[in-house]
Amino acid sequence: MNVNGKHFRAINWPGGVNGQLQWIDQTKLPHHFAIKESRDAEVVARAIECMEVRGAPAIGAMAAFGLALAFITDQNRFESYWLTRFSQTRPTAVNLFHACDTMRVCAEGGATEQMMLDMACHYADTEVKRCKVMGEHLAQVLAVGERRILTHCNAGWLATVDWGTALSGIYHLARAGESPSVLADETRPRLQGAKLTAWELSQENIPCSIQVDSAAAWMMAQGEVDVIVVGADRIAANGDVANKIGTYMLALAAREHGIPFYVAAPESSFDLYCISGKDIPIEIRDEDEVLRVQGMNNHGDLGKIDITAHGIVAHNPAFDVTPNHLITSIICETGLWKP
Amino acid sequence: MNVNGKHFRAINWPGGVNGQLQWIDQTKLPHHFAIKESRDAEVVARAIECMEVRGAPAIGAMAAFGLALAFITDQNRFESYWLTRFSQTRPTAVNLFHACDTMRVCAEGGATEQMMLDMACHYADTEVKRCKVMGEHLAQVLAVGERRILTHCNAGWLATVDWGTALSGIYHLARAGESPSVLADETRPRLQGAKLTAWELSQENIPCSIQVDSAAAWMMAQGEVDVIVVGADRIAANGDVANKIGTYMLALAAREHGIPFYVAAPESSFDLYCISGKDIPIEIRDEDEVLRVQGMNNHGDLGKIDITAHGIVAHNPAFDVTPNHLITSIICETGLWKP
Repeated sequence: MNVNGKHFRAINWPGGVNGQLQWIDQTKLPHHFAIKESRDAEVVARAIECMEVRGAPAIGAMAAFGLALAFITDQNRFESYWLTRFSQTRPTAVNLFHACDTMRVCAEGGATEQMMLDMACHYADTEVKRCKVMGEHLAQVLAVGERRILTHCNAGWLATVDWGTALSGIYHLARAGESPSVLADETRPRLQGAKLTAWELSQENIPCSIQVDSAAAWMMAQGEVDVIVVGADRIAANGDVANKIGTYMLALAAREHGIPFYVAAPESSFDLYCISGKDIPIEIRDEDEVLRVQGMNNHGDLGKIDITAHGIVAHNPAFDVTPNHLITSIICETGLWKP
Repeated sequence: MNVNGKHFRAINWPGGVNGQLQWIDQTKLPHHFAIKESRDAEVVARAIECMEVRGAPAIGAMAAFGLALAFITDQNRFESYWLTRFSQTRPTAVNLFHACDTMRVCAEGGATEQMMLDMACHYADTEVKRCKVMGEHLAQVLAVGERRILTHCNAGWLATVDWGTALSGIYHLARAGESPSVLADETRPRLQGAKLTAWELSQENIPCSIQVDSAAAWMMAQGEVDVIVVGADRIAANGDVANKIGTYMLALAAREHGIPFYVAAPESSFDLYCISGKDIPIEIRDEDEVLRVQGMNNHGDLGKIDITAHGIVAHNPAFDVTPNHLITSIICETGLWKP
């Protein structure tokens, strides 16, 4: 999608076996728009770990490119080291494991360096196509006119290479001449709603207002929300959905107010080996994310501030599981699924 | 309660018609412990508006002292100006209006300056006594042993002159030798849970961990919460409760998980002129509270940082209403009430 009117992808391979992988450093957004590049697989793995690239489909694509680079630069350790290295970068988004499997099978099939790179490009392009088609389905579900759509975290193009999951439907609506407006949960602790979703939407001239996460139920009670759409990090076989912490609380409030609650995710976010949400590993992240908030100070410097006293501890589960019965429909590239 | 082992009240009148009102500046906590003092009624009114003193019972006591000072220093305008000035500082906490009424009736009865001061002191002392007795009731409800108690915002001694509402019960439990532990919602946007509740509890050596507000339902689902206690800014005749934004969402999650949801508030937080929560005015505060977060930087300076891009807007309702049917009991100084 667009940044200052120019098209970008969250992750980009400009071409050539000797090329460099490019990605937007999302830890600096929206304050700095910086593109990083590297052909060092370890740098790519760390970019996933420290969330320079985040969002389930984008994590998968990043790992695919990282493994292609590992194959090119350190082929001897591809199976013995790099597959494990990448599969341990983040635990919850299943797209990562799908990408690792894809690249492993390709390597085991006797792929050349160019074929591994082509496979990573194909993996990323497939995610983009899935998100575009999913967005068309979602736009139909969101219907037309002045729709007030509540979102949580960032499920936009930054999270998925291009188009996005939940936001893809909103982009399609806007391009069709409709007038969607978005109420974006800021999404503590890392504030991806405030930092990424609001910025993405502003770049596409779609009206967006942010709110603290705990205002969502009250805004529903006030009649200010028509529909809710979120993304997913992993969807179990029974339709339970792991997504950013807070999604479950949102779904409970949506049911109370009879507001449709949609999950938008490509097929790569499904994990049929998980029978239910109980089988999905939930990442517990460092308490520092809760205790310190990142932003830009009055001098234009990006930094962190302590929001509490020294010695205070925090618990920081990064995801939660929304049980299937709270979900109106799951929307993927093949259509709608009622869990 | 204690700060570094020494007893303090959130608001204190050291005595004498020519004395100065003292209050802890809560906008600087927990980074700086600073006591402000003034005998200028306008300074006192502004301290309420900018939340140097906040929490429904503390707002009431602060207004009582402010009006006593207005009577002493500007008696001619007491009725024509100062009663209105103070009643317009904050809209939701009904304690403010009770305090204004109390001081108006006292003045109309022909009170002297000393009598007005005595009335303000009596008002504050009464709130402290109410909170202490309420805490004894609440401690019985919270039962004994290792209770894991979830709280929202700050309902401690800082919010109520001394003892607190929800936290009063926890302080009583701890002083009785029990082992309560607290999971404190950080409470965006102003983070009173992270900044005030966690600090208060640490000063009393009560274990406390903070979490982002939207983690509450997930922690309940994980079996990590035994009971929830919150304060109140205004309680309608039917038992609907206005409290810090997020309380409603918390109550919905509590019902889903069969976790008792208690509201602790003194009689001064009841408003029998409000038939239901629909009659309670909800304060909408400046979007700046959402868009900019206050904390301490690496150099030890207190300041604010932008968490989103310039031009992004926010909606900032400061309170919400929890309907009576979601509340297990309301606990006040006279006992328990099942709405």
